[in-house]
Amino acid sequence: MVYVGIDLGGTNIAAGVVDDHGKLLNRVSCPTGVERGHEAVIADMAALALEAIEKSDYELSDLAAVGVGLPGIMDPNTGIVPFCTNLGWHQVPLVELMRRVVDKPIYGDNDATVAALAESVAGVTAGCANSVFLTLGTGLGGGIILNHKIYSGTHGVASELGHMIIVAGGELCSCGNRGCWERYASATALIRMSKEASAKYGGALADMNPDAITARTVEDAARAGDKAALEAFDQFTDYLALGIVSIINFLDPEVIAIGGGVSGAGDFLLDPVREKLKKYVFYKTMPYARVERAALGNDAGIIGAAMLGRM
Amino acid sequence: MVYVGIDLGGTNIAAGVVDDHGKLLNRVSCPTGVERGHEAVIADMAALALEAIEKSDYELSDLAAVGVGLPGIMDPNTGIVPFCTNLGWHQVPLVELMRRVVDKPIYGDNDATVAALAESVAGVTAGCANSVFLTLGTGLGGGIILNHKIYSGTHGVASELGHMIIVAGGELCSCGNRGCWERYASATALIRMSKEASAKYGGALADMNPDAITARTVEDAARAGDKAALEAFDQFTDYLALGIVSIINFLDPEVIAIGGGVSGAGDFLLDPVREKLKKYVFYKTMPYARVERAALGNDAGIIGAAMLGRM
Repeated sequence: MVYVGIDLGGTNIAAGVVDDHGKLLNRVSCPTGVERGHEAVIADMAALALEAIEKSDYELSDLAAVGVGLPGIMDPNTGIVPFCTNLGWHQVPLVELMRRVVDKPIYGDNDATVAALAESVAGVTAGCANSVFLTLGTGLGGGIILNHKIYSGTHGVASELGHMIIVAGGELCSCGNRGCWERYASATALIRMSKEASAKYGGALADMNPDAITARTVEDAARAGDKAALEAFDQFTDYLALGIVSIINFLDPEVIAIGGGVSGAGDFLLDPVREKLKKYVFYKTMPYARVERAALGNDAGIIGAAMLGRM
Repeated sequence: MVYVGIDLGGTNIAAGVVDDHGKLLNRVSCPTGVERGHEAVIADMAALALEAIEKSDYELSDLAAVGVGLPGIMDPNTGIVPFCTNLGWHQVPLVELMRRVVDKPIYGDNDATVAALAESVAGVTAGCANSVFLTLGTGLGGGIILNHKIYSGTHGVASELGHMIIVAGGELCSCGNRGCWERYASATALIRMSKEASAKYGGALADMNPDAITARTVEDAARAGDKAALEAFDQFTDYLALGIVSIINFLDPEVIAIGGGVSGAGDFLLDPVREKLKKYVFYKTMPYARVERAALGNDAGIIGAAMLGRM
């Protein structure tokens, strides 16, 4: 049997056939076209699932289930997406609408959560009973794997790790609170820190069009020794380490996997975090979670969504 | 079958016989006498376990297991307490020494963790699959129950919730970090906040011997309308709510149970926390964890330790 995973993003929908071991066998995609409304988007997702199977070596009869990773949450009992802010969805009956086209079991979960599952099946946390996945992008998403399974909490809304409070009274977050971790540990945060440091020290980034600064620009400037970029990176890795310490003190996982755009910096990002953790962990003489770069990159969304059907 | 639970504190050791339903049947105690060294303390714990059985309606043959709740951690695989700072213990073979006197299965775990278990068996979180227990005393201890069982993490050191970072760069903690939650949500924190507010506003607490101020004194002054005490309580419940929001966003439990000395204030403490949570939770239109006062008080330590043997 095989599975189709669908990665529903704000810009594109990507889908692919995935085998029992979490291996991605092919990949198809189309634009999301959010403005067309949820029915058209869901019809396209279903069609894309069928297209993926058609373009593979498998038949529809080999398809065990279809999974969707979405930038929001889905109630697994009703198959309804209560809200998905980025897509403007409210109370969308995702499973019902998908099954009109694909008569197979349909699963759905948060995109960071399915990426966590993908890494635990076929990525850097494979074999770990307990792991936490963080995706550092525009925001900070989280996924929790406990005892080799997704942990979704009592009401299905666990692992909103970007909204742990880390600087009470600090930066205002889009959720309305102040000091959420994602205001200090995301691409958005790194860019803000680099602009603040550049205003103090000048340098490469101060001379750029501010709108053109990305996490990658900051990384490149820091690697080139730019003082402001280095200070921003130091500040950023400090907040990243402090939040990771909270995760370690809270859940004591085996591995914390870091994905998302900012993780592209690799050990240039993670080595300072690992150094700071040595100082920050509570039980300094005992083993604690390793911090590793996620292994599956952009495939994690498809693979993890597919693996929802294998759980 | 029955179980003996032992609550090992810095001042006293308390023990009791507990039935299968988590009902405490009797209670015996003796001074800890930490200065005598761990061998004498452990011999006394074992003797106390036998005394509890003797003074009950049960025989030693009815005793299924003995559990110990201690102010530290124990490795369940080796039965060794790697360290227990308050007692000055290092690498103490607790299980081996206990079994010299009581030849039954011996279990041990952190005192906040066993209190969490007690509440989930016979207290306010009974019947909840997922709950978090917080004890607000000199520090802030935590215990996590997932799927009706203690969650101890990969290395047995999970649920150090008092050391989540909530005010990065804030108050210095005994663990060496700045801004740990227990510096803002413990009896110690409430007393500090009340002194700071009294220095601004004067009032009942400003006239007291500073060393005589306890969490209870601050509560009484706040109930009597003292401006400084009310401000301290407001600040305290705010930090308590912010940390609870982190727990909700992280783990989405069904209930968060609050125990420890400060919880004696009951709804005077918890109602403001519940009000603030309405504003702070991420998914405002969905159900989230109830915040309830722990039900078992001082018995939680004995009951939970005993229930380690029933797991």
